[in-house]
Amino acid sequence: MTRIVIVGGGFAGVAVAQELQRRLPVRDADVTMVSRDNFLLFHPMLPEVAGGSIEAHHILSPIRQLCPRATVTLGLVDQIDLDKKTVFVSHGPHGAVTPIFYDTLVVAVGAVTNFSELTGMAQHALGLKTIGDALYLRNHIINMLEEADVETDPARRRELLTFVVAGGGFSGVEMVAELNDFVHQTRRYYHRVRADDIRVVLLHAGNRILPELNENLAAFALKHLERRGIEVRLETMLGGATEDEALIKDADPIATRTLVCTIGTATNPLIGKLPCSKDERGRIVVSSSLEVEGWPDVWALGDCAAVPNQATGALAPPTAQFAQREGKLVARNIVARLRGDAPRSFDFPGLGQFVSLGHRSAVAEILRFRIAGFIAWFMWRTVYLAKLPGLSRKARVALDWTLDLLFGRDITQLPLARGERVGRAHYEPGDVIVQQGDIGDLFYVITTGEVEVVRYAQDGSEHPITHLRQGDYFGELALLHAGTRNATVRAVSPVNVLTLGRDDFTVLAKNWAGLREVLIDAARERGE
Amino acid sequence: MTRIVIVGGGFAGVAVAQELQRRLPVRDADVTMVSRDNFLLFHPMLPEVAGGSIEAHHILSPIRQLCPRATVTLGLVDQIDLDKKTVFVSHGPHGAVTPIFYDTLVVAVGAVTNFSELTGMAQHALGLKTIGDALYLRNHIINMLEEADVETDPARRRELLTFVVAGGGFSGVEMVAELNDFVHQTRRYYHRVRADDIRVVLLHAGNRILPELNENLAAFALKHLERRGIEVRLETMLGGATEDEALIKDADPIATRTLVCTIGTATNPLIGKLPCSKDERGRIVVSSSLEVEGWPDVWALGDCAAVPNQATGALAPPTAQFAQREGKLVARNIVARLRGDAPRSFDFPGLGQFVSLGHRSAVAEILRFRIAGFIAWFMWRTVYLAKLPGLSRKARVALDWTLDLLFGRDITQLPLARGERVGRAHYEPGDVIVQQGDIGDLFYVITTGEVEVVRYAQDGSEHPITHLRQGDYFGELALLHAGTRNATVRAVSPVNVLTLGRDDFTVLAKNWAGLREVLIDAARERGE
Repeated sequence: MTRIVIVGGGFAGVAVAQELQRRLPVRDADVTMVSRDNFLLFHPMLPEVAGGSIEAHHILSPIRQLCPRATVTLGLVDQIDLDKKTVFVSHGPHGAVTPIFYDTLVVAVGAVTNFSELTGMAQHALGLKTIGDALYLRNHIINMLEEADVETDPARRRELLTFVVAGGGFSGVEMVAELNDFVHQTRRYYHRVRADDIRVVLLHAGNRILPELNENLAAFALKHLERRGIEVRLETMLGGATEDEALIKDADPIATRTLVCTIGTATNPLIGKLPCSKDERGRIVVSSSLEVEGWPDVWALGDCAAVPNQATGALAPPTAQFAQREGKLVARNIVARLRGDAPRSFDFPGLGQFVSLGHRSAVAEILRFRIAGFIAWFMWRTVYLAKLPGLSRKARVALDWTLDLLFGRDITQLPLARGERVGRAHYEPGDVIVQQGDIGDLFYVITTGEVEVVRYAQDGSEHPITHLRQGDYFGELALLHAGTRNATVRAVSPVNVLTLGRDDFTVLAKNWAGLREVLIDAARERGE
Repeated sequence: MTRIVIVGGGFAGVAVAQELQRRLPVRDADVTMVSRDNFLLFHPMLPEVAGGSIEAHHILSPIRQLCPRATVTLGLVDQIDLDKKTVFVSHGPHGAVTPIFYDTLVVAVGAVTNFSELTGMAQHALGLKTIGDALYLRNHIINMLEEADVETDPARRRELLTFVVAGGGFSGVEMVAELNDFVHQTRRYYHRVRADDIRVVLLHAGNRILPELNENLAAFALKHLERRGIEVRLETMLGGATEDEALIKDADPIATRTLVCTIGTATNPLIGKLPCSKDERGRIVVSSSLEVEGWPDVWALGDCAAVPNQATGALAPPTAQFAQREGKLVARNIVARLRGDAPRSFDFPGLGQFVSLGHRSAVAEILRFRIAGFIAWFMWRTVYLAKLPGLSRKARVALDWTLDLLFGRDITQLPLARGERVGRAHYEPGDVIVQQGDIGDLFYVITTGEVEVVRYAQDGSEHPITHLRQGDYFGELALLHAGTRNATVRAVSPVNVLTLGRDDFTVLAKNWAGLREVLIDAARERGE
């Protein structure tokens, strides 16, 4: 029985698993899917979730239901060892690492957001890549309306009611249209918010929006957005952000508390660590049949690969439509390889594109037909519904749309986080708090009680190192050096600890001189 | 025009605002509602959200839609000055404080969760008070199934699949029933999870569950839960919790990663600071007409008040049903007082109670009729739907229930938080980072750039104090002493800072010896 491991639960990875399910008898292969989330995100509808016309849950389809024959493992892939044909997955609250061995590997980890090239963007721009981003953005927009309703200073009120979207591609245009509809439809609940205080701006670096579409359709879209009151600024480069300004290159900043950024993607860090060859944008180089150059039985596809498309002679664009087609082909090629047949090349001309413009209008380019207005909007809804995986999801989204027509937009915020950010934990005597060899993801401060630190030698023997008490801390080394735990820490008495996550701890330790000194001094004292 | 301020947007506060809306002409009163959330939470349905049969949004009703005539202010009430008839509200990302003056005050801030009396509970028990709690719990249950599916050690798998609910009152019973249904209905998606690995336990301190209900109904409920496979342990006291155990008084601990606690409420801290008299449980003492003793024109009701009920001779129970009736009465009494009429006493015998037992069964006690089984369950749904505020919510919940019948439970997790816990911010020269006089809610570490610290005198003149640079920090004093900012901090060059929230900073500073030393030494150096 051959072991096929798919890394990544997006459109590409799920399409591979589904097609393998169809084409391989149960006994022939053991298919494992490793995914960070237990759902497939239908990301073309993220602007609708951010704008509150669709429930967040409804664009998430459970991977276990989509791929019932695959073994689904929820976790983060820390490392892929192509020589030893092993994927290392960390999962659970303490990041335990499990190796998974493969005969055939499919890499479909997608891309990540990266705003870091412009000043202040990482801190203040809002992304639109994950379901968390969409929910956060929706809450944020409502927050701005709530705050503006209390604010008495007219300049601050206008700042709160200015919404800027950067990027005039598909998702930027859909987002600015949804945002504009949302703010204007819910304005009536805020007695002190007036229509002329609201300003919605779309920034685009090029000389026309929607560069992927035909020029006439893009012009139609531009006119529609402007008629709806959106200020579209072409040939305008974003320069950065602060808490209350969007900075513009060679122009005055825009006073705003809301900068949604739909541009700026980077390679997944996992890809950077792989020894295979990559293109200038960091994507994995694959053959026309999507196999990784130099590594037989390793396939890559989707946004993390540079996929040559025979139909156009160019690279395939990073859209759901292409990811799904690539997935089908990879599954077929894996089956062909198992049976000794020749793999096929990727050759897909694309079916077309839709862009929703809000207020029941859209533009579409389908198999060379170009459509704009209400009919395009109606087709957009129909096609998206058809594409949404699973009957239950289709029914729920169709009902969302119907109820939206009947009752209008909803302004309830959905509080996302539990209050506390510093975690707390309690241990009884003998409990292991940190396990030698685990990936470190927490830093600990002891508030009451006593712990012992021990180290295990290769032969399994245990060596005591030290005892720590109230006000002491541990766990910083694995975090600072991004390695595994070099010792085990066990409670001696009942122990209470505070915990700080890896990311939080790392940024604090790197930037705060006083804290870094404390840590270095103490490490020296302990002889580490 | 008289100014009426309502503090608290729960059932009690919203009922007051709605009844005032009905009984007072627009010109006679200016009604302000101060609420932490912009929605009314229909908390009787929290177990349904945690169990995934209702969408979270659908049990939240926007307060602005329920009370269109009130001025809604979103924020936290820091302090109430009964002598100066002023409520201080903090709002916005930096906690700016706005005073609101009143002629008549309604206090309806409810109760808060407090697990701190038992060891380790605050750290490890899951509450069920807010919509965030319900969403977190739902994600957590799915996480346990996902983890159990990967876990190879049988003992650890059983630990992951053991779910404990503490408290055999209304919400404990509904929660354990929902949890049991959810886990058993979704189990089929987890190939490596077997039915006999799953254990669901209800702990109750008394000798029978549902002490508020008739004995026969409680016995029916107990038998139903046990038939569904739930282990009900009577006369069992919870002793505390660790990361992987529920501790039991005078008995062995239960190995579990899920302890849901439906017991343990405490007075809202705001009430503790008020000078009026309180009962032994910290609730405000009110007259039979719900006026606060010694403070005319101040009314208190709901879970934060000890409300005498003429119909029973006892105090009114802390349920939505009573809070709504109390709210109506307070509104009528306010109007009576304005018109010089005598206020009326609270006198409400209650309409009855429902408890859902899962799997289409319930028990009910309505106007002395006692019903159990499917008919009670059907009535429970009908009554809850009728009670849910707003037609839009009724329609959405009715559809949730219908789709749940058609498609079964959903196992998609909804990721709640954005990744980072330490905040980051960027400022341009001249931007104010901290404003003297604001409530402090953040602690800052400078990662790049320079800031100046200045203090304003009473006459408005500005006095320079110091400059701070990379690796320096500020903002700790307002947090440590829970006061307002004693100086203004302004960026001199472009500045990047890391921020840590008030709660996180305070627990770290209090418990970590090294950090506290750094802070105290530096404060001395700066001469503060």
